[in-house]
Amino acid sequence: MPTLNYKELIRDVQDFPIKGVLFRDVSPLLQNPEAFSSMAHDFSKLVDLNKVDLFVGIESRGFIFAAQMAAKFNKGFAPLRKAGKLPPPVHKKSYKLEYGEATLEMAPAASPARVVICDDVLATGGTLRASVELCERAGYHVEDILVLINLTFLNDMKFKNEPVKSLIQY
Amino acid sequence: MPTLNYKELIRDVQDFPIKGVLFRDVSPLLQNPEAFSSMAHDFSKLVDLNKVDLFVGIESRGFIFAAQMAAKFNKGFAPLRKAGKLPPPVHKKSYKLEYGEATLEMAPAASPARVVICDDVLATGGTLRASVELCERAGYHVEDILVLINLTFLNDMKFKNEPVKSLIQY
Repeated sequence: MPTLNYKELIRDVQDFPIKGVLFRDVSPLLQNPEAFSSMAHDFSKLVDLNKVDLFVGIESRGFIFAAQMAAKFNKGFAPLRKAGKLPPPVHKKSYKLEYGEATLEMAPAASPARVVICDDVLATGGTLRASVELCERAGYHVEDILVLINLTFLNDMKFKNEPVKSLIQY
Repeated sequence: MPTLNYKELIRDVQDFPIKGVLFRDVSPLLQNPEAFSSMAHDFSKLVDLNKVDLFVGIESRGFIFAAQMAAKFNKGFAPLRKAGKLPPPVHKKSYKLEYGEATLEMAPAASPARVVICDDVLATGGTLRASVELCERAGYHVEDILVLINLTFLNDMKFKNEPVKSLIQY
């Protein structure tokens, strides 16, 4: 069980970014030093740190959690970026969004490394599924996935036959 | 003096993102656990941690360094985001780029807090100057600025009458 009641530090914003959507604003949580530290501790209980070389952050809010974990547990950091941001050579993966398409890019692995992919919110899972595929294609072994919030009513995504690991569920 | 020779872990990429630009790719540095940890240690020697409540990251690569410092030294994290990403209420600041204009947004301070703004690269300084102004307008007190790389041939930016603090200079 998480150490803190994180939901108390999340602000609900109606109709953002578009009408009908309830936005979960994690700013108060991130600003709280005790909560920020507690998150890293609680994330660490969900993975086997001995099997992790790198935390991979999905641009841009995934960077926060991957960098936090890398810093706290003395691992490396690697980014999955939006198209056109990383210098060549890169691996690419396009995937469908509700409206339109997005592309993620990643640099090829310099050496075989075991990674945990980090992001802020798991909604329908399109971005995370593309991220797993892209990491494997780039030469990394995806050990696990960590998200701060899992909107479970929008997905039943599994990784290694288990629900994706998260600190907060709605 | 920095603990490591960081420049050895930076890959130079000619003509990215456009012809004539030498891109400093910090991926090998971020992936190296020893270097990533050493960066946080070296950054911490440049600021007075007793006077810092939050590390503020500029979207998106600034998130990496602000989250790293917040995690390592038990502080909070706050983002400066591109337009349209943060829910209301927000403070905004537009500023000129070499071609065109950019806008940053920040949530108002819930309580007075002392912040250090973090980014990856200081080039001409437009983004950082806008960030300082925006933080102050949002109710934060900007204590200091930390960047990984200062391209000193492109700026002579001062903060509190000193050059902006950086781990790597070109």
